[in-house]
This record gives sequence, C-alpha cells and structure tokens, in this order.
Amino acid sequence: MTATIRDVARASGVHVSTVSRTFSAPHLVNPATRSRVLAAADDLGYRPNRAARALTTGRTFNIGLIVADIANPFFPPLIKAAQAHARGRDYHVFVADTDEDPRVEEELIRTLAKQVDGVLLCSPRLSNRAIERLAEDVPFVVVNRRIKGMPAVLMDVGHGARLALDHLAALGHRRVALVSGPSGSWTSTEMRAAAAEVPGLDLVLLGPNQPTEEGGLAVAEDVAASGVTAVLAYNDLVALGLIEGLSERGVDVPGQVSVIGFDDILPGRLNRPKLTTVAMPAEAAGRMAVDLLLQSGGEGALVTLDTALIVRESTGRAHT
Amino acid sequence: MTATIRDVARASGVHVSTVSRTFSAPHLVNPATRSRVLAAADDLGYRPNRAARALTTGRTFNIGLIVADIANPFFPPLIKAAQAHARGRDYHVFVADTDEDPRVEEELIRTLAKQVDGVLLCSPRLSNRAIERLAEDVPFVVVNRRIKGMPAVLMDVGHGARLALDHLAALGHRRVALVSGPSGSWTSTEMRAAAAEVPGLDLVLLGPNQPTEEGGLAVAEDVAASGVTAVLAYNDLVALGLIEGLSERGVDVPGQVSVIGFDDILPGRLNRPKLTTVAMPAEAAGRMAVDLLLQSGGEGALVTLDTALIVRESTGRAHT
Repeated sequence: MTATIRDVARASGVHVSTVSRTFSAPHLVNPATRSRVLAAADDLGYRPNRAARALTTGRTFNIGLIVADIANPFFPPLIKAAQAHARGRDYHVFVADTDEDPRVEEELIRTLAKQVDGVLLCSPRLSNRAIERLAEDVPFVVVNRRIKGMPAVLMDVGHGARLALDHLAALGHRRVALVSGPSGSWTSTEMRAAAAEVPGLDLVLLGPNQPTEEGGLAVAEDVAASGVTAVLAYNDLVALGLIEGLSERGVDVPGQVSVIGFDDILPGRLNRPKLTTVAMPAEAAGRMAVDLLLQSGGEGALVTLDTALIVRESTGRAHT
Repeated sequence: MTATIRDVARASGVHVSTVSRTFSAPHLVNPATRSRVLAAADDLGYRPNRAARALTTGRTFNIGLIVADIANPFFPPLIKAAQAHARGRDYHVFVADTDEDPRVEEELIRTLAKQVDGVLLCSPRLSNRAIERLAEDVPFVVVNRRIKGMPAVLMDVGHGARLALDHLAALGHRRVALVSGPSGSWTSTEMRAAAAEVPGLDLVLLGPNQPTEEGGLAVAEDVAASGVTAVLAYNDLVALGLIEGLSERGVDVPGQVSVIGFDDILPGRLNRPKLTTVAMPAEAAGRMAVDLLLQSGGEGALVTLDTALIVRESTGRAHT
C-alpha cells in the first residue's frame, strides 16, 4: 500500500497541511519540523503528490492522449502501450475521445493543455493549420499525420497498402475496390497514392465512409454492384462490416470477393473467415510517441514504423 | 472556429493577461476596461477557459473515468456515452486505465482527485475499504460494485445469469460450467449466486480466469475435459477465446458445447457462430453514472439497470 500524506503527518506528529507545505514551499516550514517530516516520508516511502511537485518543477507529470474514437479497437492497444511506457517514467496518461469531431478535438486540446505537460494527438481530424496554432500552447506529438516541423509517429500505410494490393494481384484480381475512410484522413490519402503505383489494377474508389462496422455495412451494396473481385478497406472495422453486409446479400468471402483490412484488431482474428489485414504497429507507435514527447529537442522528429501484411482466410484466388 | 483569449485581447485592445484577469479576478480590472473586454468576448462568442472558471467557482468542470481495461470492448461504449452526456452539461471526461492493477487504480484516483470534480470508478479491483478511504478526497460514483453508502450504478448481472441458465436448461443442458473472471470481481460473485438458484443444474466452477480472450483460450482445455455440454462465461471476450480454443480442439460450438457470454460486444455479433450473450446496458450505465455524480444529495443513490438475454448461434440443444 502506498503511504499517504496522512501517514506521514501521523508519523511525524504534524498536521497534514504542514507535510504538504514541506514539499511545496519548504522555506515556509520550521527547519526542525521539515527534517522530521522528510525523515518520516523517507521511512514510509511517501512520494509527494504531483500537484505539489508541479508547483516546484512547473510540470504536471501528466500526458494527454487524444483519439478520434476510443471504440475503435485499433486505439486501446496504442493507449495501453503509451500509458505503460509513461508510467515507467513516472507520468500518468489521461485519455480523451473526440467522437471524430474536429470541434470537440479542439476544445479537448485547450482543456488538456492546462493540465498536462504535453499531448499525443492520434489520427486528428483538425486541419494542419488548426493543429499548428494549438501547438503554441502545449507540446504535441502527432500520430498518423505528417505536419511539417512537428514531431510525428507514422505507420507506413503506403507500404502496407502496396503489400496488400500485390497480394491481390498475385491471386489474379484485376478489378479492386478501395473503400476509403472519412474525408480528411491521412491514411485514406496514403492508400490511394499507393494503389496508383501498382500496375495493371482497375481501381474503383468508394468513399468517403464512416470508419466503423456501420460504414462497412453501408458500402456493401455498392461493392456488390461494382463488379470487383477484391476490396482493400480503410480499416478492419469497415472490412468486418463489409463482410457481414456481403454475407447478408449471399456474396461469399473469399469465394466471390476477397477482402483485406487495416490494423489487425482482435475481432478480425476471431471472425470467420479470419481477416487478411495489414498489421499496424499500434503499441510501438504509442511508446514512440511518449518518447518523442518527453525527449527534449525532438521538435521536428519523424518516426516511421513498418507495417506488415498478415494473410488469413478472407482473401483467395479471383473467381473467373 | 472557437474564439480564443488572443482574439478577445486583440478586439478589445488589451493584453491577454488582462482578459484572463477579467474572468478570474474582475475586481482587479479597471471597470471601463472590464466592460470593453466583456463586450468583445460576447461579440466573439468567447468562453473563458475552465481553469479561470475553476478559480471563481471552485470547480474544474472535468470528470475522471477509471476503467479496469480500456482494451475490453465493453468499456468504450460506456465511456463514449458518459462523455457525450457530460459534454451536454459542459463537462469534459478524462479516462484512465488501471490495467486490472489495484495499485495503479489507487495512484490514478489520487492524481485525478486534484484535477476533476468527481470520479466514475468502473469495475474497480480495489477493496471496498480502500475505495471508501479514497472517497474522502473526491466524490465517487461506482459502476459494477455495491459499496454501502456510496452512489452506484449496477447492471443486473444476477438476473441476466438466471435468464442464460434457464435458456440452457430449456435446451436440455444439465452439466454446465461457470467460467468466472478475476478474483475480487463482483460480477463473478453475482453469477455464482444466481446459478445456485437454478434447480437441476450440475455446476462446474472454473476459475479465476483473466477476463480476456487469452483467459478463454487458456480455460478451453479444462472445459473440454470437464464433460459439460454448456458454458456460461464471465464475459464475451472469454467466451470468444473459449470458442476459438474449443474449435482448435475439434469441439464444435454449439454442436457439442453451447457457450453464452456477457456484455454484447461488437466482436460477438460478427463472430461465426454469432455469440449468444447477456446484453449489459453499458451506455445507459455511463449516462446514469454522470447524472449521479453531478446531482447533489445523491450520496447513497443506487441505480440498477436491466440486462437481457440475446439468443444467437452459439447455443443449441444438448447433445446426448
């Protein structure tokens, strides 16, 4: 059990407020009393609270982490890795969810700016310009967006998309749908750019779409009508919703249409068929973002993490 | 775009610090200047920041929300419902994850206590006594635990478990495994109490288990060896892991073993077979917890929300 300020007060025979003052304004405490309090604190392994430390160091020892949608299973592993890594450096991570709404994102950043030492901004929906302006008030690390001069952690979506499309081409697929995510998403842009580089594919662009299971369900009709034999979906949630929607229409995956997602979330590994997907290094990204934030002088640092294709059961040879 | 303190300073021709003081300590600002600043703020739709409001009201307009494992898909809908509801009342919600570790839970509560007006504590792993002690420093609402004298939101797990076991009994199952969660979990205790009330069942208790897919995979061997024809699992993650583990052993669900989970998370709806489960009203619980926290005089309030059995494809007639 962690020792509390009350334990220290009891052990040193002073009031709780004296213990507090010993750590926040030691010059205001009688030296003999101060020594007694500090000795008791040492004995009990008491650590002064962060608010008191913040008064003396100017730091809060808190990090804010902002995500577009906490209900997307992509984010929790990133969040958990970031918080475990931060905890090892004596920082706490507080998470806020923007509900994919740029206005909420801005308001949360403004609120957090006053209570944390820095913000990890994951898959932002704000414009680059708005983010640059907000960065005047609090240090940022951006995940999944490149903004010139700001530290960023990127996952190599373009490389992953090429691996996925090469896999489809090798299976004989020629007519392939790109099912994109929300407008303003950096990932969607990267996917399209990568697709343009794979020769011999006849691409059908379908989007923008909600980056959720519902988005995938909603686009299933268009996919079925498009005459494609394969789909690269914005993320695994969209892919899973799409497979469900195709199945409701009697379209077999992968017998008639192959589907590839992005992220490698748990539900995709449990689904039947198990989802072929591009694994995104979410946990490494969470740890790297904490490192970039806490290291000084990392203003323009850019880290790009590798992605990998994981072939499971939702892709197969093109039917003819 | 939200107006900033800088916009107001520019429009009223004063320094930013004067705008700040106008809202935090108006008696220190020259009345003519004050009027000009307030008029500019009105024109621009500027809202003083929460820190400034906190100085005048003693409130932070923030709520802390602590969960045992943000990666469990049960929590995000609860979190999102709580934050949307709080936002409508001009509060922000900051989330922290304890990694199922009572010591981390205590440390996060202590840190949050200084920065929020109250804490929603979901599925705590701390003892009742530790929670009561922490509640001296910050108002709490507890979700999924009953602690005498503290406001709580419960989901009627016992009722849900009875519905699930009645369903299994009606399908001819007699020998049924209860696959429990972590030790110290209130939900596990409620499930066992409910099972004892259903007549004619031969119960096999398996646990404690990790409340995750891995926990379900790990218990599959014991389930296969136990000779049961049906399982009630601690939650959907455990149920999905168990189905995967049984499938790896050539045990068909529901052909040979029926499986019921708890929570009604998205992966269970996408899985094959689709999971029969007890739906937990997570979103309503998130909203109710915010209401209990923000209403005054709710010290001992207790809200119990209904649960419902959702029969899908993972349960069938007992094989003979």
